[in-house]
Amino acid sequence: MATIKEIADRLGISISTVSKGLNGASDISEDLRQTVLDTAVEMGYATKKSKKVENRKLAVFIENMEYGTPDQFGYDIVLGFRQNAFRHSWDVTVIPAPPALQSEEKYDTYLLKNGFCGAFLVGFALQDEWMRQLKTTTMPTVLFDNYIKKNPNVCYVGTDNYGGIDAAVEHLYTLGHKKIAFLNGSLHSMVSEERQEAYYASMKEHGLEISEELTAYGHYVADSARYHVPAFLNAGATAIICGNDLIASGVIAECRQRGLRVPEDISVVGFDDIPLAASLVPPLTTIRQERNELGKCAYVALDSLIHHIPFCRTQIRAKLIERKSTSRYEPPRG
Amino acid sequence: MATIKEIADRLGISISTVSKGLNGASDISEDLRQTVLDTAVEMGYATKKSKKVENRKLAVFIENMEYGTPDQFGYDIVLGFRQNAFRHSWDVTVIPAPPALQSEEKYDTYLLKNGFCGAFLVGFALQDEWMRQLKTTTMPTVLFDNYIKKNPNVCYVGTDNYGGIDAAVEHLYTLGHKKIAFLNGSLHSMVSEERQEAYYASMKEHGLEISEELTAYGHYVADSARYHVPAFLNAGATAIICGNDLIASGVIAECRQRGLRVPEDISVVGFDDIPLAASLVPPLTTIRQERNELGKCAYVALDSLIHHIPFCRTQIRAKLIERKSTSRYEPPRG
Repeated sequence: MATIKEIADRLGISISTVSKGLNGASDISEDLRQTVLDTAVEMGYATKKSKKVENRKLAVFIENMEYGTPDQFGYDIVLGFRQNAFRHSWDVTVIPAPPALQSEEKYDTYLLKNGFCGAFLVGFALQDEWMRQLKTTTMPTVLFDNYIKKNPNVCYVGTDNYGGIDAAVEHLYTLGHKKIAFLNGSLHSMVSEERQEAYYASMKEHGLEISEELTAYGHYVADSARYHVPAFLNAGATAIICGNDLIASGVIAECRQRGLRVPEDISVVGFDDIPLAASLVPPLTTIRQERNELGKCAYVALDSLIHHIPFCRTQIRAKLIERKSTSRYEPPRG
Repeated sequence: MATIKEIADRLGISISTVSKGLNGASDISEDLRQTVLDTAVEMGYATKKSKKVENRKLAVFIENMEYGTPDQFGYDIVLGFRQNAFRHSWDVTVIPAPPALQSEEKYDTYLLKNGFCGAFLVGFALQDEWMRQLKTTTMPTVLFDNYIKKNPNVCYVGTDNYGGIDAAVEHLYTLGHKKIAFLNGSLHSMVSEERQEAYYASMKEHGLEISEELTAYGHYVADSARYHVPAFLNAGATAIICGNDLIASGVIAECRQRGLRVPEDISVVGFDDIPLAASLVPPLTTIRQERNELGKCAYVALDSLIHHIPFCRTQIRAKLIERKSTSRYEPPRG
């Protein structure tokens, strides 16, 4: 557990300023106070105040997603949630929820028995037992990347898929690309469906032709590139937007195996901006999901549900990160 | 301005309990404290604390919408925003923004000059001058019922149109209706488009036939019923979902003029649940927009933008309110 001095050293500010931030003194700026609190959570510092908290307990349940280290997708999501909850004096427990736990105990029972006022669920898939129970849960619940119909106790949080895909299409369009393919993630996922619709809408809005040969559902893994890239190339694609960064890494590898250069011969755009994206060769242009902000947003939504504001859907902006895997389309000479 | 005693009388609690609620004492429940604070705002009570607030100023701009009295659509939206802002020590100013004001001064300039940290805009239409400026505003801004592309400083809040329309279709489907018409609001409105898509999706999901003769865009006024109801009836409609309660009141009147009884011959569903809805003859079954909660949600979104969480879209649940304008479909005897 970090000390106040360690927090001060990390931020390059005085111990008394850290102390003011932790205690809510009014003579430091709101932004600095937030930075102090966020860093305190990240470094594992717990104030006396938070130790005394009673009946202010929230749970983060996580499944099918890595979150233990900063290079993993779930890390910043969980951290952002904890940071924002800490500012508002909530105690947060992060609990892995493998199928065994989910079948052993009902979701609502687990929360009530352990004194939680609400929960944030990350990484759950449709077939998970607790996902089924969310249709009727009476506990305030925020769910990452999935929407539960009809139950006012559950809110979906995620990234603005429309804005994200639109930014990718616009970026490629501005670079002169017309034949833009889309290798989506898994079929039957709400997120994939939204992105597919966004791709169609944005292509249309940019006056670009939509061809069934230029779209495919893969899975969220690098391997799906092997099957679909050759078909895209045959159909004349000069750019490929991918459902996530792993798929994009597979697309780049597949292009290279076929003797094509990225970005000179074909441009590639990812989705997520996982830490891997910047270190690919070439560094990947991608749509960033602001994971720390997603976690903070999830806290805000959960706090609202607890205060009887029936949030049902909250999305935050996606952001295009331009790196080296996209370039201007040059028509073939000859 | 109300006194503590008046608040106590209204809520039927002691003066000391009101005082505890206003001063954040820990020995009353969070829910009661919220009720005390909400009532204090509604009754125009300002604590000493809120009088001292500096540099914590938010604006609510309102245009094309009535909000002065509790029976008007905007009243509860503005009240909910003020209630939630008050709890968090923000000072709120409600400012009508007619075209003259909008052309006199730029939006950002107005906010900066008057010391506002952000604003909530209610009732603005696409042609409003300030709406155009929202594409590039640098001020944290929450917008009711409209979405601004690409600008991370602006967040849209509204009701879950998909869930609302789906609840209406499901309600009628459960009552045995198959030919369900939809008289939407104005064309070229984001809200209308979402509801139109929701209608198609929900009809399909319930296995009901979609016919172009059963859908039309009206305007958000009662008069549009005169043109479209006869066509719906000719196409065999037994139920009509309306884009708002005013349209529904027009539909009921038009049906009556044609000698049809609501709900015995035709069922009618509204949208909004304005105070008028309950006093129509018959009282209107409608999809309720939780306006107080929408205002509270708008505050939460604005506070998040101010804290650099790029909220872009937040919707709250709609709720079916069953009254007397819908009933079981009885096939004609012949």
